[in-house]
Amino acid sequence: MKIRVGIAGYGNLGRGVESALRSCEDMELIGIFSRRDPETIAPRTGVPVYSMEKAGDMQDQIDVMILCGGSRSDLPEQTPMLARQFNVVDSFDTHARIPEHFSRVDAASREGKKLSVISAGWDPGLFSLNRLLGQAILPDGADYTFWGKGVSQGHSDAIRRIPGVKDARQYTIPVEEALESVRRGETPELTARQKHTRECFVVTAEDADQKAIEEAIKTMPNYFAEYDTTVHFISEEELHREHDGIPHGGVVLRTGRTGFHRENSHVVEYRLKLDSNPEFTSSVLVACARAAYRLYREGQTGCKTVLDIPPAYLHPETAEELRKKLL
Amino acid sequence: MKIRVGIAGYGNLGRGVESALRSCEDMELIGIFSRRDPETIAPRTGVPVYSMEKAGDMQDQIDVMILCGGSRSDLPEQTPMLARQFNVVDSFDTHARIPEHFSRVDAASREGKKLSVISAGWDPGLFSLNRLLGQAILPDGADYTFWGKGVSQGHSDAIRRIPGVKDARQYTIPVEEALESVRRGETPELTARQKHTRECFVVTAEDADQKAIEEAIKTMPNYFAEYDTTVHFISEEELHREHDGIPHGGVVLRTGRTGFHRENSHVVEYRLKLDSNPEFTSSVLVACARAAYRLYREGQTGCKTVLDIPPAYLHPETAEELRKKLL
Repeated sequence: MKIRVGIAGYGNLGRGVESALRSCEDMELIGIFSRRDPETIAPRTGVPVYSMEKAGDMQDQIDVMILCGGSRSDLPEQTPMLARQFNVVDSFDTHARIPEHFSRVDAASREGKKLSVISAGWDPGLFSLNRLLGQAILPDGADYTFWGKGVSQGHSDAIRRIPGVKDARQYTIPVEEALESVRRGETPELTARQKHTRECFVVTAEDADQKAIEEAIKTMPNYFAEYDTTVHFISEEELHREHDGIPHGGVVLRTGRTGFHRENSHVVEYRLKLDSNPEFTSSVLVACARAAYRLYREGQTGCKTVLDIPPAYLHPETAEELRKKLL
Repeated sequence: MKIRVGIAGYGNLGRGVESALRSCEDMELIGIFSRRDPETIAPRTGVPVYSMEKAGDMQDQIDVMILCGGSRSDLPEQTPMLARQFNVVDSFDTHARIPEHFSRVDAASREGKKLSVISAGWDPGLFSLNRLLGQAILPDGADYTFWGKGVSQGHSDAIRRIPGVKDARQYTIPVEEALESVRRGETPELTARQKHTRECFVVTAEDADQKAIEEAIKTMPNYFAEYDTTVHFISEEELHREHDGIPHGGVVLRTGRTGFHRENSHVVEYRLKLDSNPEFTSSVLVACARAAYRLYREGQTGCKTVLDIPPAYLHPETAEELRKKLL
């Protein structure tokens, strides 16, 4: 019996999940649920599309619902709502609001006697897991996270809100010098500016004052003022030709010391280099959906994160096969 | 209440555990157990030393016993024996015999209603975990493990068995070119020779035939014949001055594709650079001892590996704190 999956929300993430499920022989996509008119959606795999309101009637047909909405307004509402009826997985990524989201989803899942996994992705997600492992194994140490090179949606949006700007892409780039210092185990204290640079590609209206726009970007507090920022004005054609991908990635490092005289130094590095940020996140969602269903089948309820999931539950093979092949 | 820990075996690993426990405020070292005469052992921290035979009398005083013997002859006998009486953790690393070791330890733990964790270390251990995650998240992909630069005890021992050799150190070194190819997502098929080189530092008896020894090393099947091997003859003084450390490390890579046309490529890399192989392994053992005790307290019994442990159990803080700080 395959695990029967539903997708709630059909944007970049939803399409990523639809694509990722094709590589999972133990899972089966039952349908896509959307708040839009189902008639207007044509899924790549031809799977049925239902109105989100219909979801409640299909509880018996779906083992796990993968929520593919945004963290700002979709998931805070949808995850607790659907968690009462389904085992659910989401990629909620507003770091500061995770404890609050967790407790609302946890309460809903317990009420419905279902299991949920939130914040499944790479940060939060795999990066969090690696920070945990680093701290647990090398308690006398320091951790560092670098992001990029990759497109930051939030920073791109901030540029787009400047009058005269038609479109923009912002890349976050780790400072190689800082990364190398951490890799050498030097435990530097790094400011925002010393860790990342920001590179912007901006399309403006014809009569726009590019000088003023560049100034507006570079002095924008929280987004750019604290960083060395480069701004390139380019044509709309070049933007679409060169910058339509959504690459991302980053590095989590833990450096630490052991020995009676702290004489030995260790470096643990976890690095992601992703052509498509949403498709990779979707792939994590799918693995977590498998784990969610298995935990539910064991009788567990409530909310979990990747920090709580026994890793073997993420992999299609049995624990016995995994011990034989991977240990 | 601190977790009360015993150490069984006082070699490099045992001393590493003794040192690592000093950084864990939630754990307390109760004593060291040895098959040697306790009078001949003077632990660095002044903790009591007991005869291994006494262990059985101290079941009420120890929450987890960390086994620090060797995988060849100590652990196959000691882990199943002690697993009947204690929650135990070992670093059994004979890959091919893990399933057999697992089932013997599992039976013993169940019989004693205790919990055990075997093969805790970095390979098997953290590397296995990363192979699992890579496969689970990117099923359409390939994985690669490179070891080193680091001292291989087995290969060093093999050289020492050659007549005329007084002492030796062998370093396993990844071939940078192969590593870079994998990082570029090229999924090359690599032979043993294309993945690693071997560098040997050898001290010989004065009248030894170095030419013959070099030939014996380079043609030794399974150990060296399949690799490009370099042999350096050095003095005993130089060996101790330059090669007394036990560094190691390596890289696990997963590369994979996503997208309806497999158009996006992703690279996941996990890298360790360790000044002291045994001290890092000891640090993993200690984190797993914490998890073992917590699982036992929950009523779980039987044998586990890092693939089965919810990661949060390895970290001293509560799941709530971890969600807040790490997600």
